[in-house]
Amino acid sequence: MNENYAIGIDIGGTNTAYGLVSREGKIIFSNGLKTTSYKSFEEFVEALSSNVRTMIDRVGKEHVKGIGVGAPNGNFYTGEMVDAANLPWKGVLPLAKLLKQQLNKKVVVTNDANAAAIGEMIYGIAKEMNDFIMVTLGTGVGSGFVANGQLIYGHDGFAGELGHVIAVRDGRPCGCGRNGCMETYCSATGIVRTAKEWLSTRNYDTILRKEEKLSAYAIQQAAIKGDHFALELYDFTAKILGQTLADAVAITSPEAIVFFGGLAHAGDILLVPTRKYFEENLLSLYKNKVAFHLSALMNENAGVLGASALVWG
Amino acid sequence: MNENYAIGIDIGGTNTAYGLVSREGKIIFSNGLKTTSYKSFEEFVEALSSNVRTMIDRVGKEHVKGIGVGAPNGNFYTGEMVDAANLPWKGVLPLAKLLKQQLNKKVVVTNDANAAAIGEMIYGIAKEMNDFIMVTLGTGVGSGFVANGQLIYGHDGFAGELGHVIAVRDGRPCGCGRNGCMETYCSATGIVRTAKEWLSTRNYDTILRKEEKLSAYAIQQAAIKGDHFALELYDFTAKILGQTLADAVAITSPEAIVFFGGLAHAGDILLVPTRKYFEENLLSLYKNKVAFHLSALMNENAGVLGASALVWG
Repeated sequence: MNENYAIGIDIGGTNTAYGLVSREGKIIFSNGLKTTSYKSFEEFVEALSSNVRTMIDRVGKEHVKGIGVGAPNGNFYTGEMVDAANLPWKGVLPLAKLLKQQLNKKVVVTNDANAAAIGEMIYGIAKEMNDFIMVTLGTGVGSGFVANGQLIYGHDGFAGELGHVIAVRDGRPCGCGRNGCMETYCSATGIVRTAKEWLSTRNYDTILRKEEKLSAYAIQQAAIKGDHFALELYDFTAKILGQTLADAVAITSPEAIVFFGGLAHAGDILLVPTRKYFEENLLSLYKNKVAFHLSALMNENAGVLGASALVWG
Repeated sequence: MNENYAIGIDIGGTNTAYGLVSREGKIIFSNGLKTTSYKSFEEFVEALSSNVRTMIDRVGKEHVKGIGVGAPNGNFYTGEMVDAANLPWKGVLPLAKLLKQQLNKKVVVTNDANAAAIGEMIYGIAKEMNDFIMVTLGTGVGSGFVANGQLIYGHDGFAGELGHVIAVRDGRPCGCGRNGCMETYCSATGIVRTAKEWLSTRNYDTILRKEEKLSAYAIQQAAIKGDHFALELYDFTAKILGQTLADAVAITSPEAIVFFGGLAHAGDILLVPTRKYFEENLLSLYKNKVAFHLSALMNENAGVLGASALVWG
């Protein structure tokens, strides 16, 4: 029995992607469905399972080792999604249990950022690393901490919420009900918030004033063109990101930090100032020891790859 | 060959304690020497080895599995002490190598707080725990993070410096050269600093004004007597401690935090307000899930016990 394939499922608030992935990290088939099209969670799992079953049958189910799922608030220990803010269905959703009933395969669930960390460790830039931090800078900020070669799930399966470390005491209100969480500044949403605040309170000369709908992508394009306002936005974002990462390093002392997600697409525009503030804020013990990498899976279907890696991880 | 004993060595800036410990965590013999009496590191190791050898010979060396050492800035991977601020000798000191040459036993070195965490896991309150944080509130603040049942040493062996997380941006100068480190507020030294600042700038009515030499112990005694100033000092210290711990929980999601060290001797006077601020600052996901414990080794020779546990851990 050659179990050379894994199924990866990446559940998002709008779309859900799934794919059949080889042991080497090659996506053989992939497809998707609209998460929001299903009234109940049960209907959603049924439709998803039916699609995945077709995919499994194409290679023969004896060749598929299992199913990995990256899901909002997905819990590794219970296999449930719990009160995910972006999903149409609320409460505790028994994802692993229902998928296992439908597909009769081992199912491993975790959140998107943890899946990304495992994906990076199995297929990506962190292949040889025992200690690293994965940071996903998207609509929010997620993270996965790997120490001693293992992902830290924590006692309850909810470890790694770096986006909800308080970066600015009494700072911006966060969706979580508290103030000053790192993700209110250092996500795609956060940098747009900063831009809007600054545009409404200060008199800047910037091409971004002409943007109808200010987005992280528009800010990135303006920065590439040398727009001073956009570059200052990155500098401000980088300062908070660098400070927060410097404190995280004092806890797990990783060899590298791997960046992923929309905001990370800015590359050096974000990472060069982030490194500057990071080094300035590090305890001397750690200075010049921690590498910064962009995810090796950035331009691939990373959600599906990362989720499939859970099966091998 | 019944290797039922381990040697524990606890190197401090002033005194070094050592002992022979049974597998069950009973100290069979123990003794000490003055760290500061030795001009060179080599002389110190020679004297220490000679004393330890006598102890080993009393039970027979075939019954001793190895030697664990808790040492300032002790590095698990290299067995060295590196630039420890409180030691009379500077630079990189090859502790494990010299001890092994002298005693021909397995030698495991780490820093004091990591040794305390392992001690708690092998002999103490954390026996059944896979995920916890050990916090030592002494002259400085040390910590050991355990995740997936293993201590996090990090890539370079220097993980777990919670005392040097920036608790107050642009706060008090720290011995490490930066500002606002948690240990400048939440250590025995930190609470005394706060007391002195407040006494010199505000008009408080407190029995502590009469103290010739203000100490953490004097503050604790005053708090027990209901002195409002002393209680306010604990409240302020607890706020910073609670906030910092809440952020650390977002990274490793432990089932418990275990407190150790001089400042922790205050017990509920410190821990009740710390829990209040901790819960206020936690992401809702973690609320009411993390237990607080005082170390079970608090009144024992915890340094020696913790160090000896490295041999079994």
